[in-house]
Amino acid sequence: MSGSGLHQKLAEARSGILLFSLTPPRRSESDERVKEIAAVTLDRLAGLDVDGLILYDIDDESDRNPDERPFPYLPTMDPAVFHAQHLGGWDKPTIIYRCVGKYHEDDLADWLRHADPSRVLSVFVGASSGDKSVRTDMRRAQAVRQEVRPDLPLGAVVIGERHTRGGDEHLRMLAKQERGCSFFVSQVVYHVNDTKNLLSDYFYACRERGTAPRTVVFTLSLCGSLKTLEFVRWLGVDVPRWLQNSIRYSDDPLAESYRQAMAIARDLADFCEHLGMPYGFNVESVSIRRAEIEATIRLAADVAALLRERR
Amino acid sequence: MSGSGLHQKLAEARSGILLFSLTPPRRSESDERVKEIAAVTLDRLAGLDVDGLILYDIDDESDRNPDERPFPYLPTMDPAVFHAQHLGGWDKPTIIYRCVGKYHEDDLADWLRHADPSRVLSVFVGASSGDKSVRTDMRRAQAVRQEVRPDLPLGAVVIGERHTRGGDEHLRMLAKQERGCSFFVSQVVYHVNDTKNLLSDYFYACRERGTAPRTVVFTLSLCGSLKTLEFVRWLGVDVPRWLQNSIRYSDDPLAESYRQAMAIARDLADFCEHLGMPYGFNVESVSIRRAEIEATIRLAADVAALLRERR
Repeated sequence: MSGSGLHQKLAEARSGILLFSLTPPRRSESDERVKEIAAVTLDRLAGLDVDGLILYDIDDESDRNPDERPFPYLPTMDPAVFHAQHLGGWDKPTIIYRCVGKYHEDDLADWLRHADPSRVLSVFVGASSGDKSVRTDMRRAQAVRQEVRPDLPLGAVVIGERHTRGGDEHLRMLAKQERGCSFFVSQVVYHVNDTKNLLSDYFYACRERGTAPRTVVFTLSLCGSLKTLEFVRWLGVDVPRWLQNSIRYSDDPLAESYRQAMAIARDLADFCEHLGMPYGFNVESVSIRRAEIEATIRLAADVAALLRERR
Repeated sequence: MSGSGLHQKLAEARSGILLFSLTPPRRSESDERVKEIAAVTLDRLAGLDVDGLILYDIDDESDRNPDERPFPYLPTMDPAVFHAQHLGGWDKPTIIYRCVGKYHEDDLADWLRHADPSRVLSVFVGASSGDKSVRTDMRRAQAVRQEVRPDLPLGAVVIGERHTRGGDEHLRMLAKQERGCSFFVSQVVYHVNDTKNLLSDYFYACRERGTAPRTVVFTLSLCGSLKTLEFVRWLGVDVPRWLQNSIRYSDDPLAESYRQAMAIARDLADFCEHLGMPYGFNVESVSIRRAEIEATIRLAADVAALLRERR
């Protein structure tokens, strides 16, 4: 745990964190193929100046949206298992997501107890809809971590769209903070205006309560085709109509999306710096197309450069 | 009418137009005081690299909003009269607004007939609410101008907020274009995202119809106090919450608003250039505070510099 490592940066709520996020391989892949995927991934990440990795925990979210899912749901490996068995070569911290509703409380406690807090952090994700039956609810999961592993840094998901609808996501952030969360990772950001509304409300609510705001890590993702755009919207992400149009009508949607992602990064960095709000970025690929994956790696490098310039 | 004048730029739908807008003096001012105001105004404008002036036609808009008007309504001089009698020293074109509902058709026709189309352009403004009784409605006013003065360039007001609510402002723009409007001036823009939605929908609707998009002039205005913010919102302008917060909590709201106005200008210029949409800016002061007027003059100079850089 070095002074410039992820743990330290998060503990001190310093700006400039860069994460890269991956979805673990499908459960149907052979062990050999999983090894190959891990090797290729580590190779791709080797040149990147990131502070850590995020491994998503994918849940069947068909309850989220009655419309047909644009990409089929395919069960993926447990991110903790993928990390433990295949990412031994990764020498930086990894934030392992946990859809807490999928796990029995004992299993969650067990995993927490055995996780190495110098290598592993976690983000707990709640159910994708209120109706879903859960094995462990969010409050209980947070309490379990507080009991068995308070030294394992815990983050929470923050959703600008929820703020646009309900206007209370900033209060939810404060409540999560009180229950031990020390950082936030956003859903993919395409709607900068709504994200700024949330940040602004959170920042001034913190100030009013005399609480220090915690780092918000903004997730950036390319949307290189209409199909990906559909999927992103199916997931509940608000994409402004002008941005949808610009992807729909572009001769090169991937290049257009790249341009927009960098503009979003700059806009949010300016905004947070002016406000005095600690921030970072998470670069994510939602697609499995090679061109999009390669562009995502380039995006991470460009965002790293943007963060270096502003140090 | 030189090749680089306002008329030519609008006729060719060239980007880079800069306008400065004024409200004529109150009707209660003495003739002497009006002369003084005109002299000070021309003096302030002398150093600015603008293409033309806008003179607003102020209507009692109490029907617009049942809430109390943050600033009292004070009748102002007819902009055509102010222009004819006091702005003889202004050697560039002037866009004279006409709240058409205030005028009898004959008076409107008469004014149009005597206006000098090399010095004067017009923007017709409709009633502030549907219930208002009008002397001349918009369709009729447009037809009158088509009959008596088709060579006088006519613009129309464009309102992003209407697009956010109804989603059809772009079609309204196209309809106005068919009725002879050759440019658009926006209401004050604080909500860049919504403005981009409108522009994008307009641009692609033009493309679909094989119509060339006409220049959209974006109105920028400082909001240097909470009182001005209230007034702007009373007028029906959407101000994103983060922008309201940034003015509300700033130690120097005028400086904060200045910063935001320049950011909005850059963002819209980038957006239009990437899209290939002709654009310009109109810098307006809604306040009568000296500090805000002076800052508005500086803003116009900075926007002029921004446009020069991009030529």
